[in-house]
Amino acid sequence: MAKVADKYLKVDPWAIIEEGFDPERNRTSESIFSLGNEYMGVRGYAEEGYSGDMLLGSYFNGLNEQLDIGKHYKGIITSLRYMVNSVDWLYTRISLEGETLDLARSKISDYTRRLDFQTGTYQRDLVWHLESGKSLHITFTRLVSMTMTHLGLQQVTFKPLNFSGSIEVCSGLDFGIIHEERGENMWNVLCTSESDEISAIMASTVNTGNKLFSAFTLQSPQTLNTTRVVKDKFIGQRFSMELTQGESTHFTKLAVNCSDTDSSKSAYDLWQEGMELTITTGKLEASVVFSDQASYWSGIWETSDIQIEGDPENQQGIRFCIFQLYQTYHGDHPGFNIGAKGLTGEVYRGLAFWDTESYCLPFYMFNNPKAAKSLLEFRYKTLSQAMQRAEDVDCKGACYPIATIDGTESCDLWQHSNLQLHVGTAVSYGIWHYVNITGDRDFLFSKGVEMLIQISRFYATRGQWGQRSGEYGYYGVMGPDEFQLMVNNNCYINLMAKKSFEYTLDSIREMKLAAPEVFAEITLKTGLEEQELDDWSDKAERMRIPQDPESGVYEEHDGFFDMPHMDIHSIPVTEFPLYSNWSYDRLYRYDMIKQPDVLMFMFLYSGQFSKESKLANYEYYEPRCIHESSLSPSIHSILAAEIGKPDEAYKFFEFATRLDLDNYNRNTREGLHTTSIAAAWMNIVYGFGGMRSDGSVLSFQPSLPEKWTSYSFQVLYEGVLLRVAVDQSKVSLTAVTGGSAEVLVYGQKLLVNATGAELPLGKGMAVK
Amino acid sequence: MAKVADKYLKVDPWAIIEEGFDPERNRTSESIFSLGNEYMGVRGYAEEGYSGDMLLGSYFNGLNEQLDIGKHYKGIITSLRYMVNSVDWLYTRISLEGETLDLARSKISDYTRRLDFQTGTYQRDLVWHLESGKSLHITFTRLVSMTMTHLGLQQVTFKPLNFSGSIEVCSGLDFGIIHEERGENMWNVLCTSESDEISAIMASTVNTGNKLFSAFTLQSPQTLNTTRVVKDKFIGQRFSMELTQGESTHFTKLAVNCSDTDSSKSAYDLWQEGMELTITTGKLEASVVFSDQASYWSGIWETSDIQIEGDPENQQGIRFCIFQLYQTYHGDHPGFNIGAKGLTGEVYRGLAFWDTESYCLPFYMFNNPKAAKSLLEFRYKTLSQAMQRAEDVDCKGACYPIATIDGTESCDLWQHSNLQLHVGTAVSYGIWHYVNITGDRDFLFSKGVEMLIQISRFYATRGQWGQRSGEYGYYGVMGPDEFQLMVNNNCYINLMAKKSFEYTLDSIREMKLAAPEVFAEITLKTGLEEQELDDWSDKAERMRIPQDPESGVYEEHDGFFDMPHMDIHSIPVTEFPLYSNWSYDRLYRYDMIKQPDVLMFMFLYSGQFSKESKLANYEYYEPRCIHESSLSPSIHSILAAEIGKPDEAYKFFEFATRLDLDNYNRNTREGLHTTSIAAAWMNIVYGFGGMRSDGSVLSFQPSLPEKWTSYSFQVLYEGVLLRVAVDQSKVSLTAVTGGSAEVLVYGQKLLVNATGAELPLGKGMAVK
Repeated sequence: MAKVADKYLKVDPWAIIEEGFDPERNRTSESIFSLGNEYMGVRGYAEEGYSGDMLLGSYFNGLNEQLDIGKHYKGIITSLRYMVNSVDWLYTRISLEGETLDLARSKISDYTRRLDFQTGTYQRDLVWHLESGKSLHITFTRLVSMTMTHLGLQQVTFKPLNFSGSIEVCSGLDFGIIHEERGENMWNVLCTSESDEISAIMASTVNTGNKLFSAFTLQSPQTLNTTRVVKDKFIGQRFSMELTQGESTHFTKLAVNCSDTDSSKSAYDLWQEGMELTITTGKLEASVVFSDQASYWSGIWETSDIQIEGDPENQQGIRFCIFQLYQTYHGDHPGFNIGAKGLTGEVYRGLAFWDTESYCLPFYMFNNPKAAKSLLEFRYKTLSQAMQRAEDVDCKGACYPIATIDGTESCDLWQHSNLQLHVGTAVSYGIWHYVNITGDRDFLFSKGVEMLIQISRFYATRGQWGQRSGEYGYYGVMGPDEFQLMVNNNCYINLMAKKSFEYTLDSIREMKLAAPEVFAEITLKTGLEEQELDDWSDKAERMRIPQDPESGVYEEHDGFFDMPHMDIHSIPVTEFPLYSNWSYDRLYRYDMIKQPDVLMFMFLYSGQFSKESKLANYEYYEPRCIHESSLSPSIHSILAAEIGKPDEAYKFFEFATRLDLDNYNRNTREGLHTTSIAAAWMNIVYGFGGMRSDGSVLSFQPSLPEKWTSYSFQVLYEGVLLRVAVDQSKVSLTAVTGGSAEVLVYGQKLLVNATGAELPLGKGMAVK
Repeated sequence: MAKVADKYLKVDPWAIIEEGFDPERNRTSESIFSLGNEYMGVRGYAEEGYSGDMLLGSYFNGLNEQLDIGKHYKGIITSLRYMVNSVDWLYTRISLEGETLDLARSKISDYTRRLDFQTGTYQRDLVWHLESGKSLHITFTRLVSMTMTHLGLQQVTFKPLNFSGSIEVCSGLDFGIIHEERGENMWNVLCTSESDEISAIMASTVNTGNKLFSAFTLQSPQTLNTTRVVKDKFIGQRFSMELTQGESTHFTKLAVNCSDTDSSKSAYDLWQEGMELTITTGKLEASVVFSDQASYWSGIWETSDIQIEGDPENQQGIRFCIFQLYQTYHGDHPGFNIGAKGLTGEVYRGLAFWDTESYCLPFYMFNNPKAAKSLLEFRYKTLSQAMQRAEDVDCKGACYPIATIDGTESCDLWQHSNLQLHVGTAVSYGIWHYVNITGDRDFLFSKGVEMLIQISRFYATRGQWGQRSGEYGYYGVMGPDEFQLMVNNNCYINLMAKKSFEYTLDSIREMKLAAPEVFAEITLKTGLEEQELDDWSDKAERMRIPQDPESGVYEEHDGFFDMPHMDIHSIPVTEFPLYSNWSYDRLYRYDMIKQPDVLMFMFLYSGQFSKESKLANYEYYEPRCIHESSLSPSIHSILAAEIGKPDEAYKFFEFATRLDLDNYNRNTREGLHTTSIAAAWMNIVYGFGGMRSDGSVLSFQPSLPEKWTSYSFQVLYEGVLLRVAVDQSKVSLTAVTGGSAEVLVYGQKLLVNATGAELPLGKGMAVK
């Protein structure tokens, strides 16, 4: 992996700190300093306006616009939905003596940014040196409330260092923002209103009619004599503030944003709802909002912190990951999902992929099971779209989209949207994994089984029988490894479909006994026929799983073993990323893989493969993997830790927690690798912690990287918050709250309670 | 093959005749009644204006516009060139008593169209019944001169049946035409000029700056007092004509069109050239132009006619094919090629495919060797673009584009333009085939070898070595069979590349001896190194040609034999064409093929495969072929005739000559299947005539379809025009002109001279 760190942030256990302003890194920092609360997100852009290179990004989860992409062959999508850049509710302009603050033009010093994991705030400090010689210290603080979904708070503090006088401010709400990929503004303003107290504006997206209400109130120790400012797609207030040398003064903007992501609310209702919320929140004191936010984060860290001793960089890195995961999603809204870049940029269009179930779900299952369930409920909510998609591609049941914001397929590359079948199996795996850990039969019976039936139907109609082999499998597919574009019998898809059939059949068997009446309803609703069960059973049993009998290596797809060999180390560093530097067709004709495929299913169903089998497959595939997906290294790290390759485990981990902080892929400017952040969590918990959650009991096989003194993490399991602490000599497990739970540690059954238990660190388990 | 004839044209041995006007079939007829002279073509549209559904199509060979299609992955084209709809030089409007003639609105009777193969003219007759009760017979005659490249002639004759009076006419040149696919006009007018004699206009395409000059002069037995008409992108003359009951009067428009297809001429030069030509041609008498045209066609039929006794429909059909082939291309312009729809429609964008060398070249080789050479020279002229394309896709040498008008790749579907490699081998086969028949070493040494070297270089860099097999081949390709989208070791490509290497090496060996000095120049020019020759030799020798050892069936690509089986007869007729009715991805996961692939190379290198091998492969692939390419049935017919399946040979032939006349594919409205028309010629000559041209001597194995009394065709071979006549008892061969030639008939050597030779019709050779 030709990845090199670009280190420019200060290392701190509880914050991200940047000192000095670097225009070249501005977009990267905008991504890193993003704030969000699952409902909305804002990049860390300069709200006072910036004439240099920036991406003013303000996003609302699920709020989407449509792009028509024209007629094509049947089964290829003709339009897509994307997360649209929305209101700039932080809009502020600051003028003094005719100069307007602009980091690209103004003389400034002492610039710092700070993203604080404990207070959940983002703060920028700077000293503005005017032409007249006057110096003004300004502090911009913002937060997006984790508890009051619709609330964003901005506080701007002025401290004149060598003068007294007055400053002009314009604070507003700007719907005139450009969606960068489209190069245009996608909003029609529906109405605006202003009173002395509240400025409000509501707009809707041009094609989908999704609506967004935005309003703000201002607070200040000074009386602000405001003048209204109305421009195209903009509403605001202009005011001046008196400054006294050496003294701080400030104003606070409380912004309320209410989105309607499926055009279901009337404009009137949304306006009413927004105005009522604005009136209520307008009465809040800023200090209350700040302390409420800190208190929320304090609770999160109590449950979900990971502590690493002896490695301040990764300590900071993993907390950044956990912080951003919670900011992106915490399950308060069942209609939301996790875009590949969360709410931090336009790239990947705000779309959710299989990453949700395969990479993010475990984090939520073991930290916030309600959120895990909400993620699965997103798939239930969008079942009808998946059924429509299956019909569109001449199949039955439900074909879950490879990329979606609202349930409709939104990937405009047919080779992905029509050939990649691994979202359905990811959903089915997610249901199984969630139920296996939480035991939530309510969910399984009320929603899970219905999804499983429709998913199995899809895999029973998309697959075919080999003419010579007589085996069942999938032809014309692309597996998770996107460097093999259109192949037959991708081993991952075949195995996952087999498992999906089996789990569907098992669940139906269980439900017939446990909840026959609900099952009868589902049978009626889905039109399920007994012969379908026989068909799925037959297809599961005769599923083609190509494997070399001698070496035990699974063949990624039919013919993979004869693919021309590429020594990936012979590729010059300048040719990475290959997507940019190689002809598109050239990527697909080697035994070179982009990300784990065989190794992925060996991780997901870890218990079903021997260590020897994992070793053989790791040794075959690892040298062929180019990790051009940011999801890739962590899976390798986890497997390397298990099969006794501690050096490699640590080598692959090096990119995990600081992928964005050190901008390893040189594209953090586009947004954070949000779903890879979840892989970083897995890398520690499943990798060094050796946790496995695919058995009947949760198990651990902890090891300690040589560079670390100790580490600890916590997982919620069967209602118990288990703390696992590992140091150079021992592994300690404690039930922090909630009674006791039985787990396996190094294969030994252990009942962990509040008193805790200690075992010596496993032999040979120190990771170099 | 679920193909049903839509018969509506009268059967006539020397003409296409339609009686009555059917708006539903108007576009189909526009295609069928197309005129062309290789330099330009016009659809058979109503030049007097028509408010119903029509495609006003006027095309100039090679004249192209550019469409930018946006950034994509590296190696995928970002713009394409297409044949742009050009000036309506036939523009005419006819008014009488305030009514304007319009077939959609006017009352008409006695409507007929006639395309005459002997005179090379298209004539429409109608009687226009005015509201006042007046009836006027109008005859529109047009031709595009085969000898005077730039000249188009239109003659409009009026004969009032029951009145005398005057009629208003506006005749003009309209650049305001819409390119239907783009939905817009693609022309900027550069200048116009009018004198009493000449109206002229010149325009250029918006993006490519290709220029087109158009001018006309009018002739009439009446003195025409013309008034100039100037509108946007239009220039014309308005005049009235006196009509006397029962008498005919007419006017003639002589239009001169000069194109600049590569923006190489200055506007001034083109204007001068055009005006000089217009002055000259303006002096021509229409009768001279008509007789010149008839005389040209008389010469063509002397050389190239095919006569079929006992089957008037196919007699008409094959003459239509020969007529359209000559109209589309006859080799006077080395920079031109043959678009898939010739000069008759916008679909396929006027682009040339491998069809040129694989399907069209034989017709020209045996009828007009100069034209065959010109086609190959097009590839030489565009060698530099092919070399650029190879570089774009990370290869060396020359990668000939899958679809092109000017040498640049213009197929915007990457799966075709990046994966289909069979144009290069088609060019290399074309060179070999042409040289094999004509013995033209001049061409081979001056241009052919240089192309062969660059083609071999491409195939030596695009291919790879199988990791297990140790064999050389092509990964990630689409063969001629477009129902297998991305496969490894397509048998056709591998075999054709092997042959291409071998022919390159043979030619180099020959040239080293025969023309060492020229070879030295080419070596220098191409930077050829000796080790490349060893490399090509090695790759040819170790080329993977997958074949089942027991059955002798070649495997279309690695894994084809295990592809899920599709009983193509089980597909409901309503699902054809599958491209429109099946999800795109579904097309590609069966053992169903779109067109011959293995059978194609068995036809091209016929002499190298035994009849048994052909039989085995035919019996395997024929039941799997769906013929969704119009190029497909004829190849099957030719092979069926050879392997003793006369019924099938005739069944597949049924679509050949009348594919467009009977609109079998229901898309003739889009334009003619021009390259399939060439396959119809091959179907008779190579199929029933059993001609083979891939050996050292031309050979024949004639058979007679049971429904025919007799047939004859002629081929130019070694400077001799050979006539082959077959009736129910015998085969007669005569050297019509040019001395004598040695051929094989039923395996016997025969020296054919002017006296001729007769053999009994081969045993079992009557095709049912």
